[in-house]
Amino acid sequence: MKKILKSTVAILSVLVAFTSCNNSGKSGNKSGALASNVAEKVYVAPGEHDEFYAFISGGFSGQLSVYGLPSGRLFKVIPVFSQDAEKAYGYNEETKPMLNTSHGFIPWDDSHHPDISQTAGELDGRWIFINGNNTPRIAKIDLSTFETTEIIEIPNSAGNHSSSFVTENTEYVVAGTRFSVPIPQKDMPIKDYKGNFKGSLSFISVDPEHGHMDIKFQLIMPGFDYDLSHPGRGKSHGWFFFTTYNSEEASTLLEVNASQNDKDFIAAVNWKKIEEYVNNGGGTMVPANYAHNVYDESTHSATSTMKKEVLTVNPLDVPGAVYFLPTPKSPHGCDVDPTGEYIVGNGKLSANLTVHSFTKMLDAIENKKFAGDAYGIPILNFEDVLAGSVEQPGLGPLHTEFDGKGNAYTTFFISSEVVKWKLGTWEVVDRQPCYYSVGHLMIPGGNSAKPFGKYVVAMNKITKDRYLPTGPEVTQSAQLYDISGDKMELLLDFPTIGEPHYAAGCPADLIKPRSKKIFNLEDNKHPFAAKNEMGTKVVRDGKTVHIYMTMIRSHFAPDNIEGIKVGDKVYFHVTNLEQDYDVPHGVSMIGANTSELLIMPGQTETFLWEPKQEGVWPFYCTDFCSALHQEMQGYVRVSAANANTPLKWSLGEDIE
Amino acid sequence: MKKILKSTVAILSVLVAFTSCNNSGKSGNKSGALASNVAEKVYVAPGEHDEFYAFISGGFSGQLSVYGLPSGRLFKVIPVFSQDAEKAYGYNEETKPMLNTSHGFIPWDDSHHPDISQTAGELDGRWIFINGNNTPRIAKIDLSTFETTEIIEIPNSAGNHSSSFVTENTEYVVAGTRFSVPIPQKDMPIKDYKGNFKGSLSFISVDPEHGHMDIKFQLIMPGFDYDLSHPGRGKSHGWFFFTTYNSEEASTLLEVNASQNDKDFIAAVNWKKIEEYVNNGGGTMVPANYAHNVYDESTHSATSTMKKEVLTVNPLDVPGAVYFLPTPKSPHGCDVDPTGEYIVGNGKLSANLTVHSFTKMLDAIENKKFAGDAYGIPILNFEDVLAGSVEQPGLGPLHTEFDGKGNAYTTFFISSEVVKWKLGTWEVVDRQPCYYSVGHLMIPGGNSAKPFGKYVVAMNKITKDRYLPTGPEVTQSAQLYDISGDKMELLLDFPTIGEPHYAAGCPADLIKPRSKKIFNLEDNKHPFAAKNEMGTKVVRDGKTVHIYMTMIRSHFAPDNIEGIKVGDKVYFHVTNLEQDYDVPHGVSMIGANTSELLIMPGQTETFLWEPKQEGVWPFYCTDFCSALHQEMQGYVRVSAANANTPLKWSLGEDIE
Repeated sequence: MKKILKSTVAILSVLVAFTSCNNSGKSGNKSGALASNVAEKVYVAPGEHDEFYAFISGGFSGQLSVYGLPSGRLFKVIPVFSQDAEKAYGYNEETKPMLNTSHGFIPWDDSHHPDISQTAGELDGRWIFINGNNTPRIAKIDLSTFETTEIIEIPNSAGNHSSSFVTENTEYVVAGTRFSVPIPQKDMPIKDYKGNFKGSLSFISVDPEHGHMDIKFQLIMPGFDYDLSHPGRGKSHGWFFFTTYNSEEASTLLEVNASQNDKDFIAAVNWKKIEEYVNNGGGTMVPANYAHNVYDESTHSATSTMKKEVLTVNPLDVPGAVYFLPTPKSPHGCDVDPTGEYIVGNGKLSANLTVHSFTKMLDAIENKKFAGDAYGIPILNFEDVLAGSVEQPGLGPLHTEFDGKGNAYTTFFISSEVVKWKLGTWEVVDRQPCYYSVGHLMIPGGNSAKPFGKYVVAMNKITKDRYLPTGPEVTQSAQLYDISGDKMELLLDFPTIGEPHYAAGCPADLIKPRSKKIFNLEDNKHPFAAKNEMGTKVVRDGKTVHIYMTMIRSHFAPDNIEGIKVGDKVYFHVTNLEQDYDVPHGVSMIGANTSELLIMPGQTETFLWEPKQEGVWPFYCTDFCSALHQEMQGYVRVSAANANTPLKWSLGEDIE
Repeated sequence: MKKILKSTVAILSVLVAFTSCNNSGKSGNKSGALASNVAEKVYVAPGEHDEFYAFISGGFSGQLSVYGLPSGRLFKVIPVFSQDAEKAYGYNEETKPMLNTSHGFIPWDDSHHPDISQTAGELDGRWIFINGNNTPRIAKIDLSTFETTEIIEIPNSAGNHSSSFVTENTEYVVAGTRFSVPIPQKDMPIKDYKGNFKGSLSFISVDPEHGHMDIKFQLIMPGFDYDLSHPGRGKSHGWFFFTTYNSEEASTLLEVNASQNDKDFIAAVNWKKIEEYVNNGGGTMVPANYAHNVYDESTHSATSTMKKEVLTVNPLDVPGAVYFLPTPKSPHGCDVDPTGEYIVGNGKLSANLTVHSFTKMLDAIENKKFAGDAYGIPILNFEDVLAGSVEQPGLGPLHTEFDGKGNAYTTFFISSEVVKWKLGTWEVVDRQPCYYSVGHLMIPGGNSAKPFGKYVVAMNKITKDRYLPTGPEVTQSAQLYDISGDKMELLLDFPTIGEPHYAAGCPADLIKPRSKKIFNLEDNKHPFAAKNEMGTKVVRDGKTVHIYMTMIRSHFAPDNIEGIKVGDKVYFHVTNLEQDYDVPHGVSMIGANTSELLIMPGQTETFLWEPKQEGVWPFYCTDFCSALHQEMQGYVRVSAANANTPLKWSLGEDIE
């Protein structure tokens, strides 16, 4: 195996060296941060509430975590794409279907970019969407229950990275191909990539009432890597912008081979035009297998449906729908300012930061001033669409957010800093170091028409010496800066669970009133719910046994069960009868090859137990619920497969 | 199904009412906590380090989490008993054997009581042990890597709750039966519990050099519920103390039926005497299946061995080995003070707190002053062993820890407070409310001869309105109090991941020097490791394919692979060649029915991929590693099962 060594390798060595250099120092900025007023700025006294929610994706954990700002405290890990044994997500019978895909059950994904639903360009706090990067999917979380209620798989895609951003009325949430592949998939030599592999950009409609997702159309694009995206807003509403890299269409050693072109592209997609086209019957329905999984709050259960076809659109069939904006080198972040006029392309190997003008783009299109085309898609002239450029602001720009006061904040991975600059004048007005190697940043509402520009959260890729060590694997981390003044002020390092890949934030008051406290027992439509102790029972159907069980402080009903046989499939359907806030119960069975159930008031969950050995086996409540929690237990008697022990159950009296 | 209704039910209603009442209030103690010096006391400035480690069990999450004090920040979730898709624990081929048991692979447990290894009664910071409550197990975590390196299953047990506390030189770590069961297990009526079901107390020896665990003996005890335990220390070294409840031997509706006796027992076990007995050939070896799983750091791999027998001891065969100390009602916590003289029994339904005297116990034994026996085990007189009692200190005492300055701190679940009292005078000297319904508490080193009495952490069962809401499931939480002065001062509410069931803490300096930064690549003895790019290869063996792959910033070797067939079992063995601190790489494959791999520098991990469909499928690095991380990707070409695509691989050049 030989390797291509090009001059680019030298550049790469420099980049790596810069990173290492930056990481070797001990913490800075202590003088300011030690002041007691800094401590007070992040201290949320016992019993007081944080001012903002921050929904930070777990990156390679596959989940979405809920934090408070300014305290940086973690309130909940919402299981999305990965199994969670604590909450039984992906283990109990109700949620297993959520992780179904066309490739079968997948217990993990790589969750990247949460985005809160919007109405008229402002956050509305109803749902939050997040993409699965590895096996392309988009999930939706309901912000009244903080539970994942829908996951849709994206066919004809790979590496769903440029996702899951929403348009200004949540008309669509988008997905995009980071790794181009044969569409449809087929066996072909990897070296035939160029011209044969394709990308796809998917527009998933969102039902305005229930939020149900449906793939409206997929745009089949040249085989570049579609990296990130953002919607137009305000004047640019109706358009969507996607960065690309690897316009070289390399298929091996991309760190060298995809870094050759001076400029790659931002793809500008007029989705309203394409929507009109498909509404008028345009596009081609093609076979495609993909899962659509929906969790129903009333039955507390998910169902998975396998879809069979998807509507694809060739951009050449819709004149005026797609243009390429040349953007220096390998642009990563693709960020649109609150007015919708400026599209910032963060060229990660570029010395300068490029800002495109939406108005100038429309003018150039109107005047048909094209520099050429790529696979038939018009390329605009760089100079014609350029609004301005921030000159040499730092090394390795990745992402930009906005404070709504005319300032932009860009992260620089290599020089490890956040740089504040002015929209329109392009002048750098402040910079603060990050510890270390910052990726995304987040200002609450910073990707909407109405940012709340009080704090910025920097999400770092390296932490090294910043916290107490924990062996070779150290914590992930974010940093909180106060941006209410002219100068940014570093307030807090706070560790995160999973990789803090990206985040969405909003004022606490947007969500607090929506947050549900219990599930109403009367509304429980789970097919195996027992709504009171009189409704509990054990039903045998051949080798399958269904236990309709209840729990309330501090006993199970029933708590003695006999007549179970080795080889049975025993389903424990357990209903929490409590109707008070914050009184969950848990249940588990010794030797069960699954997780516990953690059941909220009014909810029913199910685990499967397949006893393999005769005996008397205990189960118990796993969530400390009362002074007599330790007494909340029961026994199941398991007899031989051919025994004649009768099926009986009881609470409070012996089984005779 | 009828229910027994006894007078106790009325008491229970009161207990529940007390709890609810306590929970309904809004936060208190704000006046003090709002003072800026309180904020400064918990603020750890960016780049500064916390003073203490706190290892807080996840309870029903099955894991162990690492926090810093006083900041309350979470640094790492160490996967122990539950699968973790982020770290591939329980998903990759190397760690799957860690979750093997006699019941098969179990992806979850209920982790309760971490305890740090000791030498001469003081914390030595080498290992931390933690029990699995549901399917009885004890795990050991190495505090140089912060990884779980050993799990031993406990046969003849159920509900391993009174575990995993260590003796003062870590001679033993103990396990105990919370739910008595037939020993050995057999099919019998549940109503025949009394006299037929048994408990077991297991003493697991710990190799002083490598820490390897081995069950030395199991004491077969009356069928009570063995709830918590602590070792003697100092003068009482050689003894172990276990609380019991359900001395009534009830098997249904325990909240009523196990709350009948005025006194249950603390079992005092002279383990040195039993050790001598078994060293001289005593005890009975009985058949018992249990798993012993060991992770080898040099191969980065675990192996699981199924053991076939265990040594049991009948306490009646070892005169002087076991005594029962009557203790008011249903004692929960069983806590021994730093001198080893006082054994505190936290009778959870008792008005007073009972403290036994080790000296008086020895005197009573010497004088053979017994009140009777239980199944042949001598019962001492309550008055003969009583050191003193704290009168009406609160409602629902659960646990006690010590500050090393003559003070004890007890949690009260029902009255929701921590109460400070003096050893010897038994007077209450301070009390602070908890929000809400506190369970365990932790003072760093508080269960050793040398506590570090600066902070106490209260671990609460209810949080309700203390944090921003997150739907029906709200966060779990702990509270930090300063106990350096005469009066306790509430400093901080900090949320926890999982249930903060119990914790162990120690000064940061005890662990920091031990913490390993990387795995040395030269020491990597993984059988499928490629130690450099020249060593990478793809080997077919029938339908099994082994890929020896490496990763380094920012490419895989190889990154193009052809000749894989539908129906193959493809093992990706991936080695991270980096030798810098905090440069992990991750890897995943689209559609793989497993988790990602998160691979530390110098480490090799393996995932299995079983391609089901022809095509060209990408893989990529999941952990943002450099400015060209997005370019770190590769493709695998999958052909039909009967295709003749030759097996080839490359990096940087096309496969011809």
